[in-house]
Amino acid sequence: MIQLYTDSSPNGFKITIALEELGLPYVLHHVDIDKGENRRPEFLRLNPFGRIPVLVDDGSGIALFESAAILLYLAEKTGRLLPTEEKARWEAIKWLTVHAASVGPLVGQRVHFELLAAERHPAAIERYRRLTDDAFSVLDSHLASRPYFAGDDYSIADIAHFGWTHIAQIIRFDFSALPHLSAWHQRIAARPAVQRGVTLPAPATGA
Amino acid sequence: MIQLYTDSSPNGFKITIALEELGLPYVLHHVDIDKGENRRPEFLRLNPFGRIPVLVDDGSGIALFESAAILLYLAEKTGRLLPTEEKARWEAIKWLTVHAASVGPLVGQRVHFELLAAERHPAAIERYRRLTDDAFSVLDSHLASRPYFAGDDYSIADIAHFGWTHIAQIIRFDFSALPHLSAWHQRIAARPAVQRGVTLPAPATGA
Ligand SMILES: N[C@@H](CCC(=O)N[C@@H](CS)C(=O)NCC(=O)O)C(=O)O
Ligand SMILES: N[C@@H](CCC(=O)N[C@@H](CS)C(=O)NCC(=O)O)C(=O)O
Repeated sequence: MIQLYTDSSPNGFKITIALEELGLPYVLHHVDIDKGENRRPEFLRLNPFGRIPVLVDDGSGIALFESAAILLYLAEKTGRLLPTEEKARWEAIKWLTVHAASVGPLVGQRVHFELLAAERHPAAIERYRRLTDDAFSVLDSHLASRPYFAGDDYSIADIAHFGWTHIAQIIRFDFSALPHLSAWHQRIAARPAVQRGVTLPAPATGA
Repeated sequence: MIQLYTDSSPNGFKITIALEELGLPYVLHHVDIDKGENRRPEFLRLNPFGRIPVLVDDGSGIALFESAAILLYLAEKTGRLLPTEEKARWEAIKWLTVHAASVGPLVGQRVHFELLAAERHPAAIERYRRLTDDAFSVLDSHLASRPYFAGDDYSIADIAHFGWTHIAQIIRFDFSALPHLSAWHQRIAARPAVQRGVTLPAPATGA
């Protein structure tokens, strides 16, 4: 059985969405970050960084953290959500990595300085607005000529980016100048598995 | 033939090191960031984010950016630098992703606020020191009981982390409280292919 340790948050949604898409049975363990459950010794044994999501596959004995690695594992395990044709497969892995390394972390910094930091640091706010706006505008151009990040097929790259565009909508980032990214977001948001994924674990953030 | 577009910088070193380790023939194209060559239209066609490294494999027609994706591609292409046993393989992919998503981007922010920013923002400096120190200390604990990130075998996960610990040494981050990370760093730095990789393209940063 697959054990998923997660909370209602952008990196967690990537995995609940993928598991719902794949229809794999799994046990959902709610790690409540607001209550500090991610810093408990038993959770730190699963991920010494104290972050969700964590996936343990009892069948294979594989234990993973980092949402991008988990998405790749689930895709390889099932042979789904990742194109098999070589070029399209590497397109998907490239855009998955873009999300993991060059979009997710920057949006995280923007959320911190814009919404969470105790003091206002205008230069830091400005820096992460500019960096995330630049990144989102590249994503928008990329999606101008293809329905999904890897081309014709919906893949784990879309799921990874959606985890954060979903939260970006909730906290009212302005995507009105990005028609292709907005249309892509609506296309993904319309999927039943995605709608289930973003409500897990309950209660859902921003719902 | 493999075409590599790169500069003398942490994310670039990962790929020159991997190519030197693998002994694959490649053409090195120096994209000089200080001269703005990464913003030229012909380079933006290779990577719309305007960042190195970019790898184009003429043989397969695969064109990639994002150093973690490129490392995975080179490992799969050659069947080397990535364990084949399933558990060790996913350990390597997990720690490769840790670097890409949870270490590299934070060190980049620390370098910006500590060394490059026009004004000093003590709260931002403090934030990224704390976040990178926390991350490096988890890496140190992980390496206390194994010689390499994935266990017994040197892999692309080590190469990814080394790209940044190399620069961290040059800019004098203090690793003296991290004996296992320091010993691992020396172990990697002693490899001839690594020593060649960090000098490419010339002139080498910090050399
Ligand atoms: N790069 C990691 C990021 C994981 C992450 O930052 N998770 C957040 C929730 S979305 C978390 O657990 N935060 C708690 C903390 O950092 O203390 C991934 O993609 O899995
Ligand atoms: N996540 C990317 C980061 C690439 C990156 O930031 N490269 C730097 C050099 S180390 C760069 O090209 N900077 C130029 C710029 O951002 O304008 C990767 O791992 O490839």
